Amino acid sequence: MSETMQAAVWHGQQDVRVETVPVPPTPQPGWVKIKVDWCGICGSDLHEFVAGPIFIPMDAPHPLTGKQGSVILGHEFTGTVVAVGEGVTNVKEGDFVAPDACQHCGECVTCRDGRYNVCEKLAFTGLHNDGAFAKYVNIPAELCYVLPEGVSPEAGALIEPLATGFKAVREAGSILGETVVIIGAGTIGLGTLMAAKAAGAGKTIVLEMSTARTEKAKECGADIVLNPKDCDAIAEIKTLTNGSGADVSFECVGNKFTGPLAVDVLRNAGRAVIVGIFEEPSSFNFFSLSGTDKRVIGTLAYTLKDFQGVSALLANGQLKAEPMITGRIELEDIVEKGFVELINNKDENIKIIVRP
Amino acid sequence: MSETMQAAVWHGQQDVRVETVPVPPTPQPGWVKIKVDWCGICGSDLHEFVAGPIFIPMDAPHPLTGKQGSVILGHEFTGTVVAVGEGVTNVKEGDFVAPDACQHCGECVTCRDGRYNVCEKLAFTGLHNDGAFAKYVNIPAELCYVLPEGVSPEAGALIEPLATGFKAVREAGSILGETVVIIGAGTIGLGTLMAAKAAGAGKTIVLEMSTARTEKAKECGADIVLNPKDCDAIAEIKTLTNGSGADVSFECVGNKFTGPLAVDVLRNAGRAVIVGIFEEPSSFNFFSLSGTDKRVIGTLAYTLKDFQGVSALLANGQLKAEPMITGRIELEDIVEKGFVELINNKDENIKIIVRP
Repeated sequence: MSETMQAAVWHGQQDVRVETVPVPPTPQPGWVKIKVDWCGICGSDLHEFVAGPIFIPMDAPHPLTGKQGSVILGHEFTGTVVAVGEGVTNVKEGDFVAPDACQHCGECVTCRDGRYNVCEKLAFTGLHNDGAFAKYVNIPAELCYVLPEGVSPEAGALIEPLATGFKAVREAGSILGETVVIIGAGTIGLGTLMAAKAAGAGKTIVLEMSTARTEKAKECGADIVLNPKDCDAIAEIKTLTNGSGADVSFECVGNKFTGPLAVDVLRNAGRAVIVGIFEEPSSFNFFSLSGTDKRVIGTLAYTLKDFQGVSALLANGQLKAEPMITGRIELEDIVEKGFVELINNKDENIKIIVRP
Repeated sequence: MSETMQAAVWHGQQDVRVETVPVPPTPQPGWVKIKVDWCGICGSDLHEFVAGPIFIPMDAPHPLTGKQGSVILGHEFTGTVVAVGEGVTNVKEGDFVAPDACQHCGECVTCRDGRYNVCEKLAFTGLHNDGAFAKYVNIPAELCYVLPEGVSPEAGALIEPLATGFKAVREAGSILGETVVIIGAGTIGLGTLMAAKAAGAGKTIVLEMSTARTEKAKECGADIVLNPKDCDAIAEIKTLTNGSGADVSFECVGNKFTGPLAVDVLRNAGRAVIVGIFEEPSSFNFFSLSGTDKRVIGTLAYTLKDFQGVSALLANGQLKAEPMITGRIELEDIVEKGFVELINNKDENIKIIVRP
């Protein structure tokens, strides 16, 4: 008889259940078993709860993991390595790690170019394979990042979402001294804001409609927060930039209006970095690019390089995890105090972390 | 009594007239007068003829030039400097030049960053100020590029459109060895193709529907020409790239379907360069960027740096102007043998050049 554990399993829209499941087996070669310490609830988990399946493969087995249908959610986590598979050399039992969630093939053109975050068979832990809203999870050893000194286990659980904003800023190229617009002050927007400040941004302007998130944006260093409901944000940004527009923008919402908005707030030859997950197409005139030398840069997730960078900035205080954690809950409460709370009190919450 | 000359003047949609106008006055300080040798008909001239006013300012004086309403068209030209205004030092009477058409303020943030092609008050010669379908034209001296040895006056008239494709390739970054898709084999597409070949592109794939232009694309070095009417171009390109997609694409059409297509033909983390002039918005899901690390790079026109580069490659044979010239006409015939011919026999023509 196999050991069992509690886990938050996605079964369908509005149907996540905390239930008894088998503990993952002895890890296969190249994999490790992690005892989970903390795991944050991501916007994509919420998306799957509210409107899924979005990423979760339902119609066919995932080409990398073979997973199909119901899955244990959770990919923003820290934990201790408790077992290592054959051939694992980069971590050992007892290591405390913050794992990268990008399971990848290692063979496609983007993997071989070092951009495994956009592997052609990309499988996200907790979406395309069982995740970390559970006592144990098995993952590929190569995704383990050993937490350095100076980063707490709770902060460690925020490395994953912080790495997304961190990579977004890296993809923009140097933003030293530039005027930066960040659209949305959720987890990703706030992480992007702090990373932009760390990268030497000049003026930082955040667009946000919620009062609570406006306060968080200020706490995280925003120079100006504009509410697009109360003003003409594009006109206001032009006024703040001598009539020209921002040098760079970061779209961290994923709404059909905010994609084109990220381009419209720019000066000519500015760059828009697109981080949001969009469910709908936008009406977008490509002449807004070919008439202006503007660029639009898509960015998904991160690589371990970003985990290293985020950790270094968490350790030296340029990034802060604490302002983003608005709730700490037990696994058994994940639906009511996690998903439902995040839906009902969206504006009051940034990141809720879960203790399995 | 002032001297007069013949010029092709845009008065409205379907209303371009060759008529008698005053010769431009003695050039103001910093400007020069050019006696025009050859001037090519650009797609944008045709746009103004068929569907204008598009760029031509009708409702208010242009902020840089003060021009409003009817205008002498023409901006792809060569000619001889016949008079110089006060303070002009970079050219002298008798110089044979191929002028850059980007009249600019020199004061805005993009001008001061060296990207005067997207000046906030950009005025294109022949659209926002009188152009070169005339015996004489006045332009700012700083836009004069003195034709080097080895470039004929006819080829010189093609430097301007070739520079657009040349800059598009520059904006893509290194494409050395990469698989390149070029959408559209008109003047800009063919120029982009030749510039891409010169930049060391690996496989070049052109998408083109016209038989005549397909032949031109092959003549200009395309490895493969696909007709999107006859095949599933995206599937075909994936097949040609081991299932991944192209490294880089150049959109040289400006149709609402070809903007998103330029993104869809790419592998993950590929770059689409948008060169076309679009009249309509596209339906575009920004998740096609934020889910893939793809980038979209807008590019308008060129700077003198591109004129230098194009000339160097015309002189050493890596770019060729001759295959692109499909007609040579007199100014008095510009409407019938120029605009109307280009509309009626679009596929048979690439570039028609005009002798004023």
